[in-house]
Amino acid sequence: MRITVLAGGVGAARFLRGLRAAVPAADVTVIGNTGDDFTPFGLHVSPDLDTVMYTLGGGISEEQGWGRAAESHTVLAELAAYGAGPGWFGLGDKDIATHILRTQWLAAGQPLSAVTRRLCERWQPGVTLLPMSDDLVRTHVTLELDGRPQTLHFQEWWVRLHAAVPASRIEAVGASEASPAPGVLEAIAAADFVLFPPSNPVVSIGVILAVPGIADALRDQTVVGVSPIIGGAPVRGMADACLTAIGVQTSAAAVAAHYGAELLDGWLVDDQDKDVVDAPELAGIAVRSRPLYMTSVAAAAEIARAAVDLALEVRR
Amino acid sequence: MRITVLAGGVGAARFLRGLRAAVPAADVTVIGNTGDDFTPFGLHVSPDLDTVMYTLGGGISEEQGWGRAAESHTVLAELAAYGAGPGWFGLGDKDIATHILRTQWLAAGQPLSAVTRRLCERWQPGVTLLPMSDDLVRTHVTLELDGRPQTLHFQEWWVRLHAAVPASRIEAVGASEASPAPGVLEAIAAADFVLFPPSNPVVSIGVILAVPGIADALRDQTVVGVSPIIGGAPVRGMADACLTAIGVQTSAAAVAAHYGAELLDGWLVDDQDKDVVDAPELAGIAVRSRPLYMTSVAAAAEIARAAVDLALEVRR
Repeated sequence: MRITVLAGGVGAARFLRGLRAAVPAADVTVIGNTGDDFTPFGLHVSPDLDTVMYTLGGGISEEQGWGRAAESHTVLAELAAYGAGPGWFGLGDKDIATHILRTQWLAAGQPLSAVTRRLCERWQPGVTLLPMSDDLVRTHVTLELDGRPQTLHFQEWWVRLHAAVPASRIEAVGASEASPAPGVLEAIAAADFVLFPPSNPVVSIGVILAVPGIADALRDQTVVGVSPIIGGAPVRGMADACLTAIGVQTSAAAVAAHYGAELLDGWLVDDQDKDVVDAPELAGIAVRSRPLYMTSVAAAAEIARAAVDLALEVRR
Repeated sequence: MRITVLAGGVGAARFLRGLRAAVPAADVTVIGNTGDDFTPFGLHVSPDLDTVMYTLGGGISEEQGWGRAAESHTVLAELAAYGAGPGWFGLGDKDIATHILRTQWLAAGQPLSAVTRRLCERWQPGVTLLPMSDDLVRTHVTLELDGRPQTLHFQEWWVRLHAAVPASRIEAVGASEASPAPGVLEAIAAADFVLFPPSNPVVSIGVILAVPGIADALRDQTVVGVSPIIGGAPVRGMADACLTAIGVQTSAAAVAAHYGAELLDGWLVDDQDKDVVDAPELAGIAVRSRPLYMTSVAAAAEIARAAVDLALEVRR
């Protein structure tokens, strides 16, 4: 079985760990969001790619969901002693080694897709991990701060401000001029079906879909998504703040309707949202309900299995 | 009193710490060698500048003479886990923060002299620390390795091979096209005298002298040097391997003769070498002998005091 998965960070990584456990023989390709990438201290950080790589490679901090297990923060403390910022992004020493290599290899002219492949040689995530694009795409957030409109990098809004200041606009800058990375469109076309894990529909999946060619390729494929919204609230993170910014309600139904029946063939919602199953606005999408909290690898595997089963059921 | 000092690494840093103790009111400018600079993992490391900065700023590892005190090596271990080299250069986590900032600021277009000034804002070394040049100069070593002639970066010969393979050539690549950094020629001209600490005459002082304009400026100045050779052997490091490569004997007299009376006005040798004082090949150079082992800050201060006294005595 060939499965292609669009991925943000923590939710996607945990779903993928479940997917690997549920269908160990499947050939899985992951298309990761790079709109969150940024360069604190000149180091190229790819938070979503790293979260997937570390989680599947056994290096993740289980408590945080991101970053490395058993981290120290010597380098960051030293950078702070120089008065250099940003101090609000919690870069650990082990993690920094990854960013040093990524930065070095990019500076040597290798595209991000090749760099990601080299990093994965160590981690052996058991999936093919591709960035959505080798081109620079950066998610920018417009908001009112200190009494005037400002545009910040997504990370500054998300991590420094905890998305507590309402965003009036979220834009994937560079996306419209970007090309899918080598292998992305091929992986979508060659898959038996495509899955959307419970990732942020705006800044994770939405940014991947903004790269020209990807949404078109998905319209020709079977796509099944897992709702990141349970009972009107995001399972993790602050997806509600992102949905509000683009005028979409924070509900399992609204997110599916936002993707639309042209893209989405199946949609898994939590039992709390089972009244959505027959919602008229989701006509054309096969909606199923089940428990969706990924409280363990086993629970994530059951959710992934259900997504696979739904995909096989609705497959075009 | 205004004193300008040409500096390599450990020997220079310890001498400078003595000089500050000996003449605390003096206005000291240090011109540091950058021929040893290199970029492991894409990080710009300036070993000599950092050794001076850390030693005078109180951050040095006293045991090693270079690098930071109480270091950890988490980042380097992670880089090794990725299979990335060079692993033979012992970059500690605290030290890496310095290199990350230097690399970031250089990439942002700031010259090395401005970057060094910013790093020193934290360390407050109590001297003005200037790189010899903002231009790229790299010391390359030619030797026979694996049965064929090869040219290596100085650090690879020095640190990886411990200078154990004889060098047939040592070249400061880029030096002849380099310009002195802003303030270098001015500091030489404005000083009451110039000191050469017990630094490597070939790859430290020699490389600084290879930058056009610096040797000429020194010929118009009073210059007093402290011999890095005691009893026919280098006090520290493998200067003998460098001297052999350029055809100079490893002796206090031969090093002074190599600099020459046009450059050097005074020369301090160790009591072991006191027969050199009246050597005919050192005619025109005022040679004095005294204990030269820098066994403590107090000992270094006495040596520095003697160098200052000799400079005041021979001053043109």
